[in-house]
This record gives sequence, C-alpha cells and structure tokens, in this order.
Amino acid sequence: MATNAIPSVVDALFETVSGFTTSGGSVLSGIEHLSHSIRFWRCFTNWIGGMGILVFIMAVLPYLGANNLYLMRAESTGPSVGKLVPKIQKTAFWLYAMYIGLTVTQIILLVLFGMPLFDAICDSFATAGTGGFAVLDDSIASYNTAIQVIVTIFMFLFGVNFKFYFLIISKRWKDALHMEEVRWYLIIYAAAVALVTVNLSQDVANLALNLRDSAFQVSSIMTSTGFSTVDFNGWPAFSRTLLVILMYIGGCAGSTSGGIKVTRFVIYAKAIKKELEFQLHPRSVRKIKVDGKVIEHEVLRSAKTFLLLYVAIHMFSVLIISLDGMDLVTNFTAVAACLNDVGPGLGAVGPAGNFGGFSPLSKVVLMFDMLAGRLELIPMILLFYPATWKKQ
Amino acid sequence: MATNAIPSVVDALFETVSGFTTSGGSVLSGIEHLSHSIRFWRCFTNWIGGMGILVFIMAVLPYLGANNLYLMRAESTGPSVGKLVPKIQKTAFWLYAMYIGLTVTQIILLVLFGMPLFDAICDSFATAGTGGFAVLDDSIASYNTAIQVIVTIFMFLFGVNFKFYFLIISKRWKDALHMEEVRWYLIIYAAAVALVTVNLSQDVANLALNLRDSAFQVSSIMTSTGFSTVDFNGWPAFSRTLLVILMYIGGCAGSTSGGIKVTRFVIYAKAIKKELEFQLHPRSVRKIKVDGKVIEHEVLRSAKTFLLLYVAIHMFSVLIISLDGMDLVTNFTAVAACLNDVGPGLGAVGPAGNFGGFSPLSKVVLMFDMLAGRLELIPMILLFYPATWKKQ
Repeated sequence: MATNAIPSVVDALFETVSGFTTSGGSVLSGIEHLSHSIRFWRCFTNWIGGMGILVFIMAVLPYLGANNLYLMRAESTGPSVGKLVPKIQKTAFWLYAMYIGLTVTQIILLVLFGMPLFDAICDSFATAGTGGFAVLDDSIASYNTAIQVIVTIFMFLFGVNFKFYFLIISKRWKDALHMEEVRWYLIIYAAAVALVTVNLSQDVANLALNLRDSAFQVSSIMTSTGFSTVDFNGWPAFSRTLLVILMYIGGCAGSTSGGIKVTRFVIYAKAIKKELEFQLHPRSVRKIKVDGKVIEHEVLRSAKTFLLLYVAIHMFSVLIISLDGMDLVTNFTAVAACLNDVGPGLGAVGPAGNFGGFSPLSKVVLMFDMLAGRLELIPMILLFYPATWKKQ
Repeated sequence: MATNAIPSVVDALFETVSGFTTSGGSVLSGIEHLSHSIRFWRCFTNWIGGMGILVFIMAVLPYLGANNLYLMRAESTGPSVGKLVPKIQKTAFWLYAMYIGLTVTQIILLVLFGMPLFDAICDSFATAGTGGFAVLDDSIASYNTAIQVIVTIFMFLFGVNFKFYFLIISKRWKDALHMEEVRWYLIIYAAAVALVTVNLSQDVANLALNLRDSAFQVSSIMTSTGFSTVDFNGWPAFSRTLLVILMYIGGCAGSTSGGIKVTRFVIYAKAIKKELEFQLHPRSVRKIKVDGKVIEHEVLRSAKTFLLLYVAIHMFSVLIISLDGMDLVTNFTAVAACLNDVGPGLGAVGPAGNFGGFSPLSKVVLMFDMLAGRLELIPMILLFYPATWKKQ
C-alpha cells in the first residue's frame, strides 16, 4: 500500500485541482460507479470554482491593478460600468446574482424538458463553471435533443463576457451590442459550427443531426466546458484541428471559460495590422483601439508577453510529459486541454479516454498547467519566481 | 495528360521553391533515379538560395531599415561592424568570401575522408545553404562516421550568425565571444544533444553511437538543414518532441538557417523576465539589453508581433492542409518543417517519407509557408496585404 501512496495522493490532488479550475484535466476514471454525493461534489467544485474565478477576475483584479487586460475591459466603455457598480462588494453581488440566475434558469429548463432533477442540478453547475463534470459516463450523449440544445445554448452564454450582461441589465443596449469581443466570439462560434457541420456532412440527409452535434461540441470546446455528445476523436482531421484551435481561442475574458480569450485575439489581430501598416508607412503613428478606446501601451505589452509565456509553458509541459512515451497528439492536446482548462483532448485523452495513463510527474505538470491557465499564467509563475520571495 | 497539368506544375514549383528557400519542403519523391545534372542543380539551388538569403539579411535589409531585428544585430556591437564594412558591396563581398571559404573547406575535408567528389560538392552546397538536398536516397546515412561528424560540424557552423565570423576575422575576439545569441545557440545545441543521447541510450554500450546520431540529427534539425542519418520518426516521444521544438527555435539570425531564430528567443526570455519584474515592482523602469546594448521599443514590438503573425500563419496553414485528411502529427509537423524551412517532419513527412501525398492546394499553402519562413514573414504577408497596393 505504501508504494501506492504517492500516486494516490497525486490522483486525489489532480481531481481536486481539475474540479476547482473548472475541469482542466477531466476525469481519471469512470463516473457512474461514484456515489451521488461524490458526483454532486464534483459538479459543485465546478460551480464554486467558476464563481470564484468570475469574481476574482471581474471584481477583485481590477482593484488590485494586477491584470491590465481585465482592467481595460472593465473600463473600456467609459465611466458607465464604474458608476453602475462602484465597489467590489456591489460588483460581486451582481456577478453572483447573474451567475446564480443563469444557473437556476438552466436547471428549470432542463427539468422541463425531461432531465432528472439531480442530473439537471449537477449538469447546470458544471455548465455554469464551464467545468463539464457530468454525472453520466457518456456525458450528455444519452439525453434527448432538446436537452442537448439547451446545454449548447447555456455553455455559449456562460462563455460571454459578464460585462455584457451588466450592460444589458442596466439597459445600455448600444454599449452591449458594440462590445467587439462579444461580436467576435459570436462570429468565430458561428463560423466554426458551419465549417464543422459541412465537414461532417458527406451525406446531406444528416445535415440537421450534424448541425446539432457540431453546435454542441464547438460550444463545449470553445468555452472550455468539455461536455460531449459524440466522440469527436473519430471526426475528420479538419474538424479535429479546428476544435484544437478553438481550445486555444477560448471564450470571452470576464467569463468562466478558459483559453487565451477572444479579447486577446482581437488585440493580436490589431497589433499585426498595425505592424504591417508601420512597415508600409514607418512615420505614421497609430494607436490600437478596442470598443472605441485606445489600448494603453502596458495592456498591449502585457497581452503580447502573455503569449510568449503561454508558448514557453506549453512547450516545456509537452516536453516533460513526453517522457511517459505517449503519442505526440495525446501529449500535445493533453497540455492544450489542461492549460486552457477544457477537459478532453484527442488521442488517449479524448472524450472516450482519460488522464489516468500519465505518470505522477506528468500529472503534477498538468495540474500546474490547469492552475496557471485558470489564473492567467502570471500569478502562478510569480509563485515560483525567486524574486517574489526576496525581502525588499 | 491535361488533367495532370496543374498537379505537375504545382509539383515543379514546389521543388523549385523548396530548393531556393533551402529546402523547406524536402523532396516529393526518390532522389537516386534523378540524373547527375538534376541532382547537382538541386543542391546548387540550396547553395545559391542560402547565399541570397545571407546577403539579403545581413547586407541589404539593414540599409532598407526594413527589418529592425537584423538592424539591431548589425549595430549591437557598436560602431565596429559599421567601420569594418561601411558599404553594402563590401559587406556582401565579405559574406560571399566567408560563405565560399567555408563551403570549399567542407568539400576538401569530405573528399579527404573518402567521399566521392560529386557527392562532396553537392552535399557541401546543401550544408552551406542549410538546404539538406542530398544526392542519395538515405541522405548521409551510408557514409562513414568521419564524414558524418564533418557534416555535423559544418551544419552547426552554418547556423552561427555570420557577424561572429566577421568579428573573428577582424580579430575582435572579445566581442565575438560575448555575442549572447551565439552562446545560447551553443548551450541549446549541447543541452539538446545530451538529452537526446541519454533518452536513446537504454543500453550504455550504444552511448558513443547514439551521441553521433544525436549530434547529427540535432544539428540538422536545429539549423533547418534536414539531412538525416537515422529515421528519427522511430525515436522515443521525448526525443521527437525535442526535435520539433528545435525546428521552431532554429539557428542564429544572420545565418542561412530557418526557424524563429535564437536571438528572438533571447529577447522573448528577457521580455518575460521584465514583465514578471514589472508585476512585482510596477514603478520600476527596466530596459531590455542584448550584448550590453538597450533594445529599442520598436525592435521589441517587432519581435513580439513576429510571433503573433507566426502563430496565425501556422494555425491557418495546419487547418487548410488538414482538409486532405492526413493525421494531425503529419499536418502539424509538415507546416513546422515548411515554415521553419527544415525539410523533414514526422509521420508521413518524416525522414523516410515525403510531401508527395498532399493535394495541390496543400502544396500551395506549404510553398507560401516556405517563402514566408524564408523572408521573415512580414515581406511575404505585405505582398498579399491590400493596403500595399493602394496608391498614396
């Protein structure tokens, strides 16, 4: 027994980290043999984890001045948000209210369309936290179409920047509809669903069914929820590649979803455009704007350095876990699934597999990735950075 | 015949682009059935391509003010290089002299150790341009150990920043030895060789042989040459992963090698360090220095945006070629091999395979990648950027 102690402790930690980071690493084994209370607890960690992250990112970080990206997001529509919720407590209250409100709405809808109450509560918790811990081994696959559609929609909704809902509640429709991030989130989602549907539909007769499956899986992967209704490991290479790309893109900043976030990609695209124009007209001075507001130099630098750090952590993680000798697709997508807090990857860690085959060392690396991905990298890296602990 | 016209034209273009970009895409079929003149021509394109790139990057770009990174490199040891070679013609003359000198030295050494003259000339041409077009189907595998070691060393030497040789020739030993990029190039190379050797050596008896193979393959991949002596597709996952990472790192800026270049990684590492220290001490002002000289804001911005553009091109390329339905490892490493101008990847495009299985569309995408990788991305992208063609 003593020889199994370390692996067991690592496994228990892995499950816990996975739950609270809203399921970076998915499960280590089957679910259905677990008791009701454990299954409830798993989904509850997803829910609490999501709530914690949301409040941390939207209410706490801007006041610490610690994360320029979210600070920018919070300020980007001018003084309106500031006036709406001038204090952390008030911001947090509204976040809790919206989060709970959406969750309860989903539970009611799911029950109305025939899901057992226990399943509805657990699955709604897992949707809200974009955690994806389901109560059945086949995730959402065995429920009816209506339920699958409801879950699709709510996964999408929990991937929207919560500032959007703030603005809707305060009837600032125009500001809400002009949020560039939310627009791009919708455009990317719709384009991905269309492409996957076409890619899957060799036979036009299956179009409707493929649209349903595509919409579900794209919603699940893009928002880093990780629910599944089909084993996309068996999909054509194009669809699988697109899903992996969506893992990296993620949902909106200021939501419970993982990934690099749509807002950063909006900034990246504008930075590339600016660079190209600088090469054409070296003396022109251009500022990057998002939602009509100039992005400060520090936000830009921070967003770009984020990608450098992201690539570095990704690279070292894949290298270390490759020591286990698994195939490259499994290793690469396992790190992608953890760093973006998605859950399932491809290969041995696909929707039908799990992370049980990795060594304790690899699991430690993947836990680090889940936490780093959840905490926007820098806070996690600072923890291990010697200068952090030096006395001033 | 007419139906084969387009694929044939694409194949011919692919081979030509591959040759002049110093073998981004390796070969489409066997080599030994080709005539001597064609085989010579292929290696000659490697050599001429490498020479063109070297002069373009080291002598022409800095005067156009077009590429900040190389401008910085050219200036980073102060006025010494400027005084040594004040004009493009003179810089180009010295580059040609060093390039030809190194090539001739390699030819002589290879012949001395028993390689046929034809093979020695062709292989040296392919080494100099880090092109890797060999004259035998098994690349360098069937030559003796001495020859393999010589090729290993020369691949490494052609991956060094040529400014290093400038400094050596002008007896500025201290400046040469303090070039951070060259130091890191050596450190990364030595570390990778050691790790791969250990990873391959289950049996200590094979240590020497594994060291030889490891040193060769690491040199070949890191400098983007693409010669091979063993099929590393069969190596353990850790070694394969490390080789893929080295493809991205590449050799030094100001050499004929491909990849993102060691100097950018030096800048990236320092940018991450600066960001972490900024988070700890938000009011501190720190400048990034390389070789003791402050890196200007524009160089830094350019180097970071390079990575954004690199990731974007990589992502879209993998997505488009995945339409052919090949496996993900093949698709991913095919793009890696082309964008970094390496030659072989893994899977179906490994050292024992070739790019023949891709559709014409995919070959066009991969040709674009080879050219973009060779031209440091931005010039290639500007070609397709609408604003470039607008009248002022």
